[in-house]
Amino acid sequence: MAKKTTIYDIAKELNITVSTVSRALNNISTISERTRESVLEMAKKLNYRPNKVASSLTSGKTFIIGVLLPSAQIQFFASVIHSLEKYLKSFGYSILLYQTNESLESEKNGISTLLEAQVDGIIASLSLETQDLSHLGKVKEEGKPLIIFDRTHDDLLVPVVKIDDELAGYMATKHLLDQGYKKIAYITTKHHIKIFKERYDGYQKALEEAGLEAHAAYAIFGELTVDGGYLGTHQLLRLKERPDAIIGGDDYVALGIIKALHEHQITPPTIGVIGFANQNFSEHIIPSLSTIDQQAIQMGKECAKLFLKIIERKDSDDKEMEPVVLKPILLARESTNRKSARSLHS
Amino acid sequence: MAKKTTIYDIAKELNITVSTVSRALNNISTISERTRESVLEMAKKLNYRPNKVASSLTSGKTFIIGVLLPSAQIQFFASVIHSLEKYLKSFGYSILLYQTNESLESEKNGISTLLEAQVDGIIASLSLETQDLSHLGKVKEEGKPLIIFDRTHDDLLVPVVKIDDELAGYMATKHLLDQGYKKIAYITTKHHIKIFKERYDGYQKALEEAGLEAHAAYAIFGELTVDGGYLGTHQLLRLKERPDAIIGGDDYVALGIIKALHEHQITPPTIGVIGFANQNFSEHIIPSLSTIDQQAIQMGKECAKLFLKIIERKDSDDKEMEPVVLKPILLARESTNRKSARSLHS
Repeated sequence: MAKKTTIYDIAKELNITVSTVSRALNNISTISERTRESVLEMAKKLNYRPNKVASSLTSGKTFIIGVLLPSAQIQFFASVIHSLEKYLKSFGYSILLYQTNESLESEKNGISTLLEAQVDGIIASLSLETQDLSHLGKVKEEGKPLIIFDRTHDDLLVPVVKIDDELAGYMATKHLLDQGYKKIAYITTKHHIKIFKERYDGYQKALEEAGLEAHAAYAIFGELTVDGGYLGTHQLLRLKERPDAIIGGDDYVALGIIKALHEHQITPPTIGVIGFANQNFSEHIIPSLSTIDQQAIQMGKECAKLFLKIIERKDSDDKEMEPVVLKPILLARESTNRKSARSLHS
Repeated sequence: MAKKTTIYDIAKELNITVSTVSRALNNISTISERTRESVLEMAKKLNYRPNKVASSLTSGKTFIIGVLLPSAQIQFFASVIHSLEKYLKSFGYSILLYQTNESLESEKNGISTLLEAQVDGIIASLSLETQDLSHLGKVKEEGKPLIIFDRTHDDLLVPVVKIDDELAGYMATKHLLDQGYKKIAYITTKHHIKIFKERYDGYQKALEEAGLEAHAAYAIFGELTVDGGYLGTHQLLRLKERPDAIIGGDDYVALGIIKALHEHQITPPTIGVIGFANQNFSEHIIPSLSTIDQQAIQMGKECAKLFLKIIERKDSDDKEMEPVVLKPILLARESTNRKSARSLHS
């Protein structure tokens, strides 16, 4: 039996997107008359019969998905979006992005703006300011799916894709301990967004397991920036008992740590340095920077898969969905490689 | 005489966006009944009288602007958008982003998607694939303004904001010459997008002025990536007459150049290295990287200003508008600082 023609086949033949085909067949939107005609012709030629179930699912659909994110300037988010977009585009979806720049007011406006743009659903990561969640209810009210990724909130009963941040903090610390470091400091930020607290919890857990104490003077709560790492490190180096390793809250903080160490003629791994997020530059600086990869690509893909699952089922029991929790990956590089640095010199 | 109440005043009083006020007053979109009522109440309280001219301009407006860009993963674009957004948000506009990921097909789809989302206009930067421009005509057909930034095309008769790329290439080369470098190589990419060719033209011009020839073996056309810089540098170091300075097509290429030099135990500025784009990391690596700043913040602001000018005039002589051309800025840092490196050693 011949395979049934789908709108994907029509799109492929005409070298246009599934979204365009769907719009043409459903007689919606601003498709040009010429495009509409060529779609209808091709549909006829390929003997396309609309699937009744599918067409009830797709009627009224715009094949546009709204993505709300704190900022594409944060490389982690840019990577998640890139991956999510790639996956969803292959299913005929277009993505519209809205940046909140960490403002709750802007996030509220973003939800309205995306809903007014007639998106089929929203995939969102919360701003640092977000504590009141009522604006997110509007998505549900319009009967559209909402998925939250990375920056989540306990009170949200929607499907979630996140990473195990406590494990990330634990892995960074455990790696330093395995390399023989014992006086491990941590430069991070104080914030109600859970991920930073969870990473710090992981740090404390790893120290405890090793029978070490988390020295209060070794925890610096500053800005998550190059300057934050730089200033924090100068503060740590003034201590009577200097740390022998420093964890940076992200790779930019780690860059500031290395810069400050350099001014004291110290090069990692003499003092070990590790970051989070595996920025593009981290592998390539000298010495190369150890870091914890947060699986941005995988996170984008999981969001996309979850979205397709929900939108194709179109039921509303997604409250009971288990969160998708990804495992971070340790990338051990020169900046913490004390063991081989030692063997080189012995 | 008391100042006339505007929708900005109402927005401020209610701590909501101008966009929301406009939507409420114009009875459009999915504003909640409660919000609409509070806007109407406040309008009454503040004795607001709609300006007839302004309201003919704003009626039907969504206060949403579409921005089409190659990729927010390219930090330059992320910075332009961030600046543009900040400026336009203060005028009550929301921004929806669409990424083309350098695909012409996706760019076509993006234009349709943004128009269907009822944006008031589009600000765009072209994909590397874009040569046929017919899809951009649709914006004009709907009577909406279109502005192109950075990645432009000669055949486009629309307002443009760009940077003087020939000058950027010239400045990088002239700086190296001023530092006493004479054998200057260039690792870049071959592409029909004008900016890369223009920068290379600037390089040749600066050499010519100095009475030097552009040595064919010193021009490497590869990938604009860390690997591109790394491979290109190894190729250059195999030459009988090695260059004494290398220009990288961007800061990531420069990172690859430094990495390859390091494997030959060479540290800049012994061989000078300069990049383009002033990435976040460039100032902070060791040695710090000289680069050409491409004025992303200013570019975003100029796009926003131009957009407001056009949308408020609402006439169509924008064809005759002169392009806004920004001047690049040289950021001279350690990686090319041969003169003080020498004086330190003498």
